[in-house]
Amino acid sequence: MQKDDNFNEWYNDIVEKAALSDKRYPIKGMNVWTPYGWKIMRYVDTYIRQELDATGHDEVCFPLLIPETEFKKEKDHIKGFDSEVYWVTHAGTNELDVRLVVRPTSETAMYPMFSLWVRSHNDLPLKVYQIVNTFRYETKQTRPFIRVREIHFFESHTCHASEEDAQAQVEEDFVILKNVMEKLCIPYFLLVRTDWDKFPGAHYTVGLDTVMPNGKALQIGSIHHYRTNFSVPYNITYEDADGEHKNVHQTTYGMSERLIGAIIGVHGDDKGLVLPPAVAPFQAVIIPILSKDNRNAVMLEAEKTKMILEARGMRVKIDDRDERPGSKFYDWEIKGVPLRLEIGGKDIANKVVTFVRRDNGEKGSVSTDCLADGVQMILDRIASEMRSKAWGKQLDAVLDITSLDSIPDRILRFGWCGSEKCGHTLEDEHELKLLGTPYIDEKFDGKCIVCGKKTKKPAYAARSM
Amino acid sequence: MQKDDNFNEWYNDIVEKAALSDKRYPIKGMNVWTPYGWKIMRYVDTYIRQELDATGHDEVCFPLLIPETEFKKEKDHIKGFDSEVYWVTHAGTNELDVRLVVRPTSETAMYPMFSLWVRSHNDLPLKVYQIVNTFRYETKQTRPFIRVREIHFFESHTCHASEEDAQAQVEEDFVILKNVMEKLCIPYFLLVRTDWDKFPGAHYTVGLDTVMPNGKALQIGSIHHYRTNFSVPYNITYEDADGEHKNVHQTTYGMSERLIGAIIGVHGDDKGLVLPPAVAPFQAVIIPILSKDNRNAVMLEAEKTKMILEARGMRVKIDDRDERPGSKFYDWEIKGVPLRLEIGGKDIANKVVTFVRRDNGEKGSVSTDCLADGVQMILDRIASEMRSKAWGKQLDAVLDITSLDSIPDRILRFGWCGSEKCGHTLEDEHELKLLGTPYIDEKFDGKCIVCGKKTKKPAYAARSM
Repeated sequence: MQKDDNFNEWYNDIVEKAALSDKRYPIKGMNVWTPYGWKIMRYVDTYIRQELDATGHDEVCFPLLIPETEFKKEKDHIKGFDSEVYWVTHAGTNELDVRLVVRPTSETAMYPMFSLWVRSHNDLPLKVYQIVNTFRYETKQTRPFIRVREIHFFESHTCHASEEDAQAQVEEDFVILKNVMEKLCIPYFLLVRTDWDKFPGAHYTVGLDTVMPNGKALQIGSIHHYRTNFSVPYNITYEDADGEHKNVHQTTYGMSERLIGAIIGVHGDDKGLVLPPAVAPFQAVIIPILSKDNRNAVMLEAEKTKMILEARGMRVKIDDRDERPGSKFYDWEIKGVPLRLEIGGKDIANKVVTFVRRDNGEKGSVSTDCLADGVQMILDRIASEMRSKAWGKQLDAVLDITSLDSIPDRILRFGWCGSEKCGHTLEDEHELKLLGTPYIDEKFDGKCIVCGKKTKKPAYAARSM
Repeated sequence: MQKDDNFNEWYNDIVEKAALSDKRYPIKGMNVWTPYGWKIMRYVDTYIRQELDATGHDEVCFPLLIPETEFKKEKDHIKGFDSEVYWVTHAGTNELDVRLVVRPTSETAMYPMFSLWVRSHNDLPLKVYQIVNTFRYETKQTRPFIRVREIHFFESHTCHASEEDAQAQVEEDFVILKNVMEKLCIPYFLLVRTDWDKFPGAHYTVGLDTVMPNGKALQIGSIHHYRTNFSVPYNITYEDADGEHKNVHQTTYGMSERLIGAIIGVHGDDKGLVLPPAVAPFQAVIIPILSKDNRNAVMLEAEKTKMILEARGMRVKIDDRDERPGSKFYDWEIKGVPLRLEIGGKDIANKVVTFVRRDNGEKGSVSTDCLADGVQMILDRIASEMRSKAWGKQLDAVLDITSLDSIPDRILRFGWCGSEKCGHTLEDEHELKLLGTPYIDEKFDGKCIVCGKKTKKPAYAARSM
């Protein structure tokens, strides 16, 4: 499995060999979450929940199906989704009077209810989220976690009294994002999407992009400021302190199972998956190194080690299969277990446990006197170094260019005057995907790469996944 | 709210006032899980997961949509569901070649994959589960949690080498059930359903029924033994140790959001919801009893109490709203919080916290010297007494009858010869729902209530919800 030679093939191979997902389900792009992949996803969900709960969001669960009449209330929104939704038209043997959309995202399911829930300024801010599956009729080639037709999805939706309050929510979303991404060791750019690429119905959209090893950008989430674009058609109003009725300002924030795709792509290597400790179903695997006369002692030591580490909250597995150690090493490397612990007669005599880090192959030993502390410290170091390495690679992937003569497979940064005309030229004539302009200002002084006009803001572009 | 006078009205009233669910969503029977109700459901899910994980089941997540071709492979199954499934017929602007069923249950989604996953006896038993929403086009009147069109659902599916192994799984399911129901303090009967009432495709079905205050039975789950009824049409086979190919024996176990309906119905009273401590979003609510000169001291004591209890893993809220204590008591009684803690100047002086139990109104005080132990003990006592009381009421609800002359609103026990003819007479002429015969033998010696034939096995019947 050569990651750099053929990323796409490597990626599919890893998903299959690490048993993250089974794509043999009889509907293309609707894959089965097998136990190992689902566990990783559930850890990601847990971290998202923690952050959302800590910032005063309430978890809810809205229905899957949306009446066509509700779905069509916001004109840009429906234009954006019309060609990619699934329709329920029959129930039992009856044809339905009103067709039902299978949720592609939940604005149009939630906002009719928000209009009932929000009455006065005391009801604001309203901050809710849900973790559900969404559905898109993808016509492009599907790929596990990255482009699928049933998508495991997190979405938060908020209502605020003013545009400024909604703006403050966007800033809070960045903190949530930062905390979750730290767990996953995934770097990202915050890029304000172009007007023609923003979420249908949004005032503006910030795309969250990470870089794949093939130099392409993978959007792993987005944060939207809606202003009153939805609250007007859905009639979400509140009475302010002076008795005046006003429309709420809204935001949303969404991330999906693409985060799993990002983990695979950003961290994996030629030997397989490399999991950040926070989401690894097993953070350490213990391989007993047996000789014919020490079986009992080694197995006892392995059990003891497992108990000590589990008591500290670590997730540990003993691989006691009847296989050669080398073949076990190979299996757990594919599955990306952060730390391998080897226990043999010599280790017991020396009162140590031998460890091998999955991320960089480093080998060493931990004294059994401070086993839990020692192993925890190594896991922390793995996480911190995976994070730094990934951020380093992401920043290295960015290339400043001043001419469009030859375009390498990198994330490109260049001057853009901001006009639609020059933007479309970039996308249509140079086969680039304009990712947008940095949300956080970057020092820049240059010229639009298309028209030559002076500009203080750079744009980012790439070939998207 | 009078629970006993008009149970149905009381039930709907509680769901609304305790804010468990919002039924104003524009599709009838598809309700919005609001934060309080969803939290309770998620605790129930957590206990189910704990039990399933502990018994070696792997969590998976299968696609929502099932091709009609797969759905129709088992003939009895499709007959049972044909009239109550939703159909996806279009995607974007295209009509689909193969229509897709929105899952009513996942046999037909999972079994084509099981046929790929199971190869040899080493792959058995295969034990998986998922917690997802399922969909039924209900034509009867809907009611929150009890009869809805989108159903929050747990389902486990297992494959075994022999009928006996599958039977042992059914027995393990009873242990799982017992452990989960202990947390919810919900009593139940295990009743083998009649042949005409078993799950479509099953060899036999054990229904799990609890009794509602109106004397009707509520099915809260079911456990099925399929023998090879599905593994033949879905071609799920394994090679045994002798190289012979055999069909697997299968079981399933399902429970749904009806568990929430059972909690409401079994435990609630005229003041509102009464939550078992294990699933209560807040297990204790602290009401500061303020006078004009002790505000700071009382609030400080309230915060301290909360911290001490939370450090022991309890879920605690301080209600510091600007309302009279009496009005706060009322609100938290509706929401069913198991324990109210009152802290006022006198309590501080006496080094106690005053408590009032939601389940029986008992009032007392806990010394601040052993606050966490004391409160935990009260919560444990609440759970244990709620459990005993509910079991007592369930057993009391059963009435042995020997004649069908007058039929009270109770769970009826009587002799039944086991014939379809007498069974149908009971159901059609006497408007009873035959719940089945006890899974665990009960001492009985009597006559069939219809034909008079001698029988050693009783049957149970009721008007179902």
